[in-house]
Amino acid sequence: MRGPLVTPFHAGEIARRGTARLRAGLPFIPMHFGQPSAGAPAAAIAAAHRVLDRDPLGYEELVELRERIAAHYADTHGVQIELERILLTAGASAALVAAYAALFRPGDRVAVMRPGYPAYRNTLCAMRLEPVEVACGADMGFRPTPAMIAALQPVPQGIVIASPANPTGAMLDGAQLGALLATCRDRGIRVISDEIYHGISFGKRAVSALELDPGAIVINSYSKLYRMPGWRLGWMVAPLELAEQLHIYLINMFLTPATLAQHAALAAMDEPGDLAHWVRIYERNRARLIEGLAAMGITRIVPPDGAFYLYADVSHLTGDSMQFCLRAVDEIGVGLAPGIDFDPEAGRHFVRFSFAVTPDEIERALELLAGWL
Amino acid sequence: MRGPLVTPFHAGEIARRGTARLRAGLPFIPMHFGQPSAGAPAAAIAAAHRVLDRDPLGYEELVELRERIAAHYADTHGVQIELERILLTAGASAALVAAYAALFRPGDRVAVMRPGYPAYRNTLCAMRLEPVEVACGADMGFRPTPAMIAALQPVPQGIVIASPANPTGAMLDGAQLGALLATCRDRGIRVISDEIYHGISFGKRAVSALELDPGAIVINSYSKLYRMPGWRLGWMVAPLELAEQLHIYLINMFLTPATLAQHAALAAMDEPGDLAHWVRIYERNRARLIEGLAAMGITRIVPPDGAFYLYADVSHLTGDSMQFCLRAVDEIGVGLAPGIDFDPEAGRHFVRFSFAVTPDEIERALELLAGWL
Repeated sequence: MRGPLVTPFHAGEIARRGTARLRAGLPFIPMHFGQPSAGAPAAAIAAAHRVLDRDPLGYEELVELRERIAAHYADTHGVQIELERILLTAGASAALVAAYAALFRPGDRVAVMRPGYPAYRNTLCAMRLEPVEVACGADMGFRPTPAMIAALQPVPQGIVIASPANPTGAMLDGAQLGALLATCRDRGIRVISDEIYHGISFGKRAVSALELDPGAIVINSYSKLYRMPGWRLGWMVAPLELAEQLHIYLINMFLTPATLAQHAALAAMDEPGDLAHWVRIYERNRARLIEGLAAMGITRIVPPDGAFYLYADVSHLTGDSMQFCLRAVDEIGVGLAPGIDFDPEAGRHFVRFSFAVTPDEIERALELLAGWL
Repeated sequence: MRGPLVTPFHAGEIARRGTARLRAGLPFIPMHFGQPSAGAPAAAIAAAHRVLDRDPLGYEELVELRERIAAHYADTHGVQIELERILLTAGASAALVAAYAALFRPGDRVAVMRPGYPAYRNTLCAMRLEPVEVACGADMGFRPTPAMIAALQPVPQGIVIASPANPTGAMLDGAQLGALLATCRDRGIRVISDEIYHGISFGKRAVSALELDPGAIVINSYSKLYRMPGWRLGWMVAPLELAEQLHIYLINMFLTPATLAQHAALAAMDEPGDLAHWVRIYERNRARLIEGLAAMGITRIVPPDGAFYLYADVSHLTGDSMQFCLRAVDEIGVGLAPGIDFDPEAGRHFVRFSFAVTPDEIERALELLAGWL
């Protein structure tokens, strides 16, 4: 082992205990991971059945899917993206790994928000890049500002941004995102915009970095809106001058992404009604969870603009969010993610609830929590 | 772009032209990529159908599959592998990327054979490790020796070995592999043994590095023997003291591997008769291809011990293997991989035939080649 020690996802331990409960016949409500419990749209499942029976599933990149993604950007974001700029990836994760390798050099500094998705930081460490954590707490609505980025010294080579963000659901509007991108452009900071929660927002439209800056690297995935986390498929949009080399990195590092998933994703993209149906369920879950938690005294929550998370300040209940989550799973079978996954410091006082579950599961979780707290 | 320029797979261009031919209604015989044309065992397809209808396919690692892999090592190789040492991966590729990141530091030297699988070398470059190419030509049966490794100065930090090897199908017997591993152990060279062609050999048993050296990192995959390339699933076996951190690297960099593929792979492992049936077809294809190529004067071939490749010296026909392969696809619709993918120097004189196709395709390819040459 000559690589640095990397931190595990602490929510993984919650998952292990939850799985053990289920195997022992005990109830478990899975609000710990960022995965919709509903499964893929029926049309995606049907497409997978058809393709399974007729296709040997070799190494393949479906040009039809890249065309469909280009159409999505035209329809949803009003931007024309050349097909050559769209690269299929084994989820947003593989896209991020290839982007880190291609865009940066060992020792380069890359800004990430705190709280934020732990793999941004941990994968930077694994690849010998230096995460520069930008504190972006509840006091600022969990939203980074241009001033915060402009203040970073020395200037980082890159930044990873996400709107909606994990674990907070905070979004930047067009003006805020535009100002942030302009600050990065002025300083030569390469922007990676993780847009995997696009399409899941509550009253606000998610603005793509591609609408404002064609130099941004955009990463997206079928795991969240399309409810296909275990299918491992995503995409990347890169500026034309980088796209060919990024594709060569992807092929060498990962070959092509899962073939069956590509066919299913193509079908899923043509089911806007089904996708919207579940976003409405998340919206109701969100309202019910905010209300129910408030009734038990958990009120310090910045209501999320998008994604399917509530990041709740529970400092009146615990100073050790991991211990809190371990007790929640062991004592009442409610799976939560400890804030320390997203912020090793202030995260001791926070837990993340995923509300991409059924309304019944939300009700049951609230009952169990109310009885327990 | 602050990363190094990385070389594409030249066979990718052959694939693009082949796909264009098929779309234009022209014939194409796909012997360019390392993928079985037959598709997964029927039992794997059936399992996938069942799981598609009942499972939401979230992020998951099937402990049953890791148990099945442990049983495979006990049955096939006579070694007991603790479950904690077995890690599921998104193909051998993701396993290699995580292993490179965890085991080495930027600038470390890692030995690879030439000719060899191009992604070993290219991914090392992408990750700022230095490939040390060890020439291992037809004169030595494409087999590395302990003396070749002992001669490397300065001593590399790591080595990637493969038996059967790509593109040559050359295998090391137990004594040869044992001697090589002992040389590496004596010098502190970390061994990554890529065993993705295990199970596909012709009269010789593939020896796993795990039988001889519990310190080796072993990588394997469902893409070749199990005929599931587009499913993107593989595994890694690591020494106990490294396994936990390697798992943390994998989860941060890639999350979990494709869930449906895990279920299908479990079914595929219980179909030894089906797997052996196709290996017998490859064996007949191999014999027929050697015979047919000899009849047209292509005789400088080291008969492969395993895998499904013939690496043929065609220096009497061309000094530019890429040009040769481009003409073969454009003029007669036969897809071959140019030797320069595997060896940028001597590879100008070689082409690789994949014989993981149907016997009919072998006959048709031989007819077309005979008419053309």
